[in-house]
Amino acid sequence: MDEAERHLVVVNQRLLGKNEQLAAANREHFRRHGMLAINVLSSPGSGKTALLERTLADLAARWPAAVIVGDLATDNDARRLRRSGVEAVQVTTGNVCHLDAAMIDQAVQRLSTKSLRLLFIENVGNLVCPASYNLGEALRVVLLAVTEGEDKPLKYPKVFKSADLVLVTKIDLADAVGFDRITALSNIQTISPQAKILELSARTGQGLPAWYDFLEQRLAGVTAHVRGA
Amino acid sequence: MDEAERHLVVVNQRLLGKNEQLAAANREHFRRHGMLAINVLSSPGSGKTALLERTLADLAARWPAAVIVGDLATDNDARRLRRSGVEAVQVTTGNVCHLDAAMIDQAVQRLSTKSLRLLFIENVGNLVCPASYNLGEALRVVLLAVTEGEDKPLKYPKVFKSADLVLVTKIDLADAVGFDRITALSNIQTISPQAKILELSARTGQGLPAWYDFLEQRLAGVTAHVRGA
Repeated sequence: MDEAERHLVVVNQRLLGKNEQLAAANREHFRRHGMLAINVLSSPGSGKTALLERTLADLAARWPAAVIVGDLATDNDARRLRRSGVEAVQVTTGNVCHLDAAMIDQAVQRLSTKSLRLLFIENVGNLVCPASYNLGEALRVVLLAVTEGEDKPLKYPKVFKSADLVLVTKIDLADAVGFDRITALSNIQTISPQAKILELSARTGQGLPAWYDFLEQRLAGVTAHVRGA
Repeated sequence: MDEAERHLVVVNQRLLGKNEQLAAANREHFRRHGMLAINVLSSPGSGKTALLERTLADLAARWPAAVIVGDLATDNDARRLRRSGVEAVQVTTGNVCHLDAAMIDQAVQRLSTKSLRLLFIENVGNLVCPASYNLGEALRVVLLAVTEGEDKPLKYPKVFKSADLVLVTKIDLADAVGFDRITALSNIQTISPQAKILELSARTGQGLPAWYDFLEQRLAGVTAHVRGA
C-alpha cells in the first residue's frame, strides 16, 4: 500500500465515522416518531422497486408509509412508486454507489407525510458499497433474485452478513432458470446465520403474506417501544 | 462538501491518475504481445461467467486464451472457468468493488500460458465502481441480462457510456420475464450510441456466432497492428 492508498483508508474511516454519528441521529428520530425504517439492498434488477410497489399498494391503507429511493441517475423509480399512492422522495447520487446517513436525513426533511409508520429506503442497486453505510435503519433487507444464481451470498458476503432478512425474489422464475433452491438456501444460511429467510414473487404474490407478517411484527415492536418511552 | 469529503476527492483523483499510468503500461504490454484484452462488466448474476465458459469452450482451440477473474470473495468462478480447459487466474479483492490496473499487471505475471491471443478479464459484479477503472483493455463489454429490466442503462449511465459492446444476455428468458426488447434497445442506444449491441443466450447458444465474429474482427485488428509494428 503506497502513501495515497494509506491516505484513502484514513479519509474513508473518518467519513464512515461521521456517517455512524448521523445514522445514530436518524435512528433516534425514527424511534421517537414510531417509524420502522427499512433499508432495502440488492444488485441492480433484483426486484426492489417491484417488491415495494406491491407492498405499498397492499399495506399503505393499514399504515402510513413512504419511500426514499436512491439511484445514480433518473427519478424513474420514485415515479413508479408514487403510482402506489404513497409519497416517494428520489435521491440522485451521481457517481456515488450508495446512500448515506446524511442523504437520508435530508430526504426525511423533504417528506410531507405526517405520522409515518413505515419508511422504506430503496438503496442504490449494488451488492458492495451500500453494505458499509448504516442509514439508521431498524431493519436491513437484502434481496437475492433466483435469476442471479445461487452463489451470490458467497461472493458478496459483507452485505449478506449484515442482513436481518434475506428475501429470495422472483421465485415464479425458479423453474425457467433452473434455480437450485437447496444450494441457495444453504449458501444464505452459511453466510447469514443471523438472518430470517423468506421466498416470494412480487409478480404472482406468492410468499407476500409472510413478508407482511414479518413487517407487522417488527412494527408492533416499534409501537411498544414508543408507548413505553 | 466538508473538509474530509474534499480530501477524499483529491486522494481519489490521485489514485485514478496512478491507475491510468498503469493501464497505459498494460495496454502497451498487450499490444506488443498481440493480445486482445477484453474487460467484461455487469451486475452480479448477469451471466458473465456463463458467457465466458461457453466462449472459451468454443474458441480456445482456435486462439490461445486465458481469463483473469475478479471477485470480492471465493475462487468459484476461476474453478468454473478452468473446466473449459483454459488457464484462469482469480483476483480476490476483499472489500474493493472493482479490479484496477495494478491487479491486472500482477495477474498477467501469474499467467503461464504462452502466446496468448485472447485475454478475458471478468470484472467484479458491479455496475458502478468498475466503470471508473481503465485496465488497459482494448475492448470493454457490458452485459445487460433480460432479467434485470430495460431501465438499467438509464440508471447506470457511466458504465454503459464506456462500453464498446453491449451484450443483451439470457434472451432465452425474455418471454418468461416479459422483457420489452424495443424499450431496452432504445435505452441502450440513447446512453451508448458508440456501442455495438448484440443479443445472445449462453445457455441455448442463440446469438453466439455474431459475438464470435465480433471477437475475430477485433483480433484481426490486433494482429495487423503487431505485423505492422
